[in-house]
Amino acid sequence: MDIKTYIANNEPRFLEELFSLIRIPSISAKPEHKEDMTRCAERWQELLTKAGADKVEIMPTKGNPVIYGEKIINPALKTVLVYAHYDVMPAEPFELWHSEPFEPVIKDNHIWARGADDDKGQSFIQVKAFEYLVKNKELNCNVKFIFEGEEEIGSPSLEAFCEKHKELLKADIILVSDTSMLGADTPSLTTGLRGLAYWEIEVTGPNRDLHSGHFGGAVANPINTLCQMLSAVIDEDGKITIPHFYDNVLPVPTAERDMIAHIPFDLEQYKKKIDIDDVQGEIGYSTLERNSCRPAFDICGIWGGYTGEGSKTVLPSKAYAKVSCRLVANQNHETISESFVDYMNHLAPKSVRVKVTPMHGGQGYVCPIDLPAYQAAEKGFEKAFGKKPLAVRRGGSIPIISTFEQVLGIKTILMGFGLESNAIHSPNENFDLTIFRKGIEAVVEFYKEYGK
Amino acid sequence: MDIKTYIANNEPRFLEELFSLIRIPSISAKPEHKEDMTRCAERWQELLTKAGADKVEIMPTKGNPVIYGEKIINPALKTVLVYAHYDVMPAEPFELWHSEPFEPVIKDNHIWARGADDDKGQSFIQVKAFEYLVKNKELNCNVKFIFEGEEEIGSPSLEAFCEKHKELLKADIILVSDTSMLGADTPSLTTGLRGLAYWEIEVTGPNRDLHSGHFGGAVANPINTLCQMLSAVIDEDGKITIPHFYDNVLPVPTAERDMIAHIPFDLEQYKKKIDIDDVQGEIGYSTLERNSCRPAFDICGIWGGYTGEGSKTVLPSKAYAKVSCRLVANQNHETISESFVDYMNHLAPKSVRVKVTPMHGGQGYVCPIDLPAYQAAEKGFEKAFGKKPLAVRRGGSIPIISTFEQVLGIKTILMGFGLESNAIHSPNENFDLTIFRKGIEAVVEFYKEYGK
Repeated sequence: MDIKTYIANNEPRFLEELFSLIRIPSISAKPEHKEDMTRCAERWQELLTKAGADKVEIMPTKGNPVIYGEKIINPALKTVLVYAHYDVMPAEPFELWHSEPFEPVIKDNHIWARGADDDKGQSFIQVKAFEYLVKNKELNCNVKFIFEGEEEIGSPSLEAFCEKHKELLKADIILVSDTSMLGADTPSLTTGLRGLAYWEIEVTGPNRDLHSGHFGGAVANPINTLCQMLSAVIDEDGKITIPHFYDNVLPVPTAERDMIAHIPFDLEQYKKKIDIDDVQGEIGYSTLERNSCRPAFDICGIWGGYTGEGSKTVLPSKAYAKVSCRLVANQNHETISESFVDYMNHLAPKSVRVKVTPMHGGQGYVCPIDLPAYQAAEKGFEKAFGKKPLAVRRGGSIPIISTFEQVLGIKTILMGFGLESNAIHSPNENFDLTIFRKGIEAVVEFYKEYGK
Repeated sequence: MDIKTYIANNEPRFLEELFSLIRIPSISAKPEHKEDMTRCAERWQELLTKAGADKVEIMPTKGNPVIYGEKIINPALKTVLVYAHYDVMPAEPFELWHSEPFEPVIKDNHIWARGADDDKGQSFIQVKAFEYLVKNKELNCNVKFIFEGEEEIGSPSLEAFCEKHKELLKADIILVSDTSMLGADTPSLTTGLRGLAYWEIEVTGPNRDLHSGHFGGAVANPINTLCQMLSAVIDEDGKITIPHFYDNVLPVPTAERDMIAHIPFDLEQYKKKIDIDDVQGEIGYSTLERNSCRPAFDICGIWGGYTGEGSKTVLPSKAYAKVSCRLVANQNHETISESFVDYMNHLAPKSVRVKVTPMHGGQGYVCPIDLPAYQAAEKGFEKAFGKKPLAVRRGGSIPIISTFEQVLGIKTILMGFGLESNAIHSPNENFDLTIFRKGIEAVVEFYKEYGK
């Protein structure tokens, strides 16, 4: 039976299974959903077993458990490790949802629910493609599954889990469906992710808020100082001035820049959508390069002094900011983090005290497009969507992808089927059923090609 | 009866009267205290009448009423207009008070309460000196009183009141007790005040908070931009870069700089008290010059983006700041205010939208030390404190003093008896009873000298 027929014959069951997962509000950010995490892991255990996986286990971590399963058909064959996550984001603000977030409905050929895409819908694609290959006896490589329950809170337990179970997780490639395509008619594969470094800065001036009339002009104002320090981080060309910041940044290959230039992109629409009169960034790079292949420095939050109604003339004692750098592949987030701390301390005048606290970080990632697994994924998309997918780098971070590379030494293929309109992390998350079907087909084709 | 004996005989009554004023929480900043404003004005009406003033009236304004009273003994004699305010600052944070802010207590020879100094305690000195002169039949000039209820919120109704009642307020000199001395043993008179200009700035980038991974580096971050704009306002020499900012600033006369250099001032103590390792300001000026004779630019408050626990990678839609300039005599706050608005708009890149809202402002003020009224005040201090007071400029602003000069054409003598340790506007505001008594004596001597 071909895959299209298999899907058509089994779709009501597929949806009932997927809905049974969605109905469990496995919100990792909220401690009151602890039991739902277990219920969701158990439901996955049943579904993976039913799909054909062996030895499906719920394995403890310091946080929410990991579900592990495998189908080893021949140790001599290649092994694919499928990673996914069974936790979801909170659903607030509830009032903006058109239907219940945890009661999936089908409308206009879409599934509407929290997790419809991220990542229950997308990971279900992986499991159903695997099920087909097993049932149809076409599986030609070994498959391992690792589903975690803490992705939406930064995967705090995953690195330790990988360290502990290196042998168990051995594989040739990792396959993940948790990213988006450029459009329903513009299939794409994510080949790069940015890294991250994040700090909180506290600048202390006098030991209490002072009257700006009595002290202004004579005592350093920590907000003035913080603004000066932070504004020094980006120069007139939009370059980041942290010493040695660009030392390890690899130039974007000309071939890749050419490809980026061919990505359908309407700058006027882009500006209009977020209502800005102009874009702004590093000189010499396009918007799509700036937000994916090049680093960025953003002040994510700032506060200090009087912020209430009206005016209060105060020279405050403290000023704070939360700042982040998006990093690119080959930049070490820990080195950058240390350089930034040093840089801030170097910029700080003697008249204030500065405390810079590194918060979290992650490495950037690049997947070479000549990897056999990448090319298999490309073929899968081409078969299912009728078009060769574009290779695109993304500006966001999936820290675990770099963790896999560093701890397990395995590259990841980001075979994601989301769309920007799927509204992940927002009200009215949804997933297009047509893409859901094509996704299963693409993954089936990936295995066929990769396992050859 | 001499003044010392009069005070000694009447002190219990004085304190009970003052406490009855303090017990009324006349907080002008909080609308819920509207009735307390009226109660406080009525209480002053009783006390001024009892002290010997005639025709004491509660006169309406657009905001809180003004109390007016007078004692015209002979229109041919000089007239002193006593200005004070009956409103007080809010008492928050309550938890830092050692006693109830609106239930005055006497401890260690100090009165502890909100308003003990600013301005109930200080204005009470004026009224008791007047009472003594009336009762003792020694008043040798006419006296008018004008007590307002909105000083702590910027005196929004006072200018219109002065405009309307120019004739009623006619006087030769204005006398105000609402400032501080250098120390209990270093009496001083305030001869200069800084002006003020205050703005709120709103910088808008995209129309909603964006994911800093997807947009960072390509879209202007309004916090980054705000920091850049604000850090450009002060250059490396500590000079303010607003175009034409210094055009009307008069250089501090050498004679005055010499006097400033002789004010007892211990820089190490100053730094230690507010726990800073170094002072900072305009190159070429001392700390005491920087905080009184020279302008300053302070960011009083700043906010934007994510300011909660932990880290959130966001490129925010908006950033805000409240900023102020302390101005010196001869700088026009309205011109400066306009220049700053233009300057910010000039500095703003096309990638953001900037809105600068002028909040309030006031002119600086200088009192020549050869005025007869100044010399009478000097004598008063000398008699009461046993030392000739120093003439000092102050860094703060009392915008109404310049309003009086501009609208009524009358100079003001700032005969203030506060101390820095009185903690005005802060928890545990207090007033030294010894200074309270000396203050009454000094004002009595002022009248005797001035009315000669």
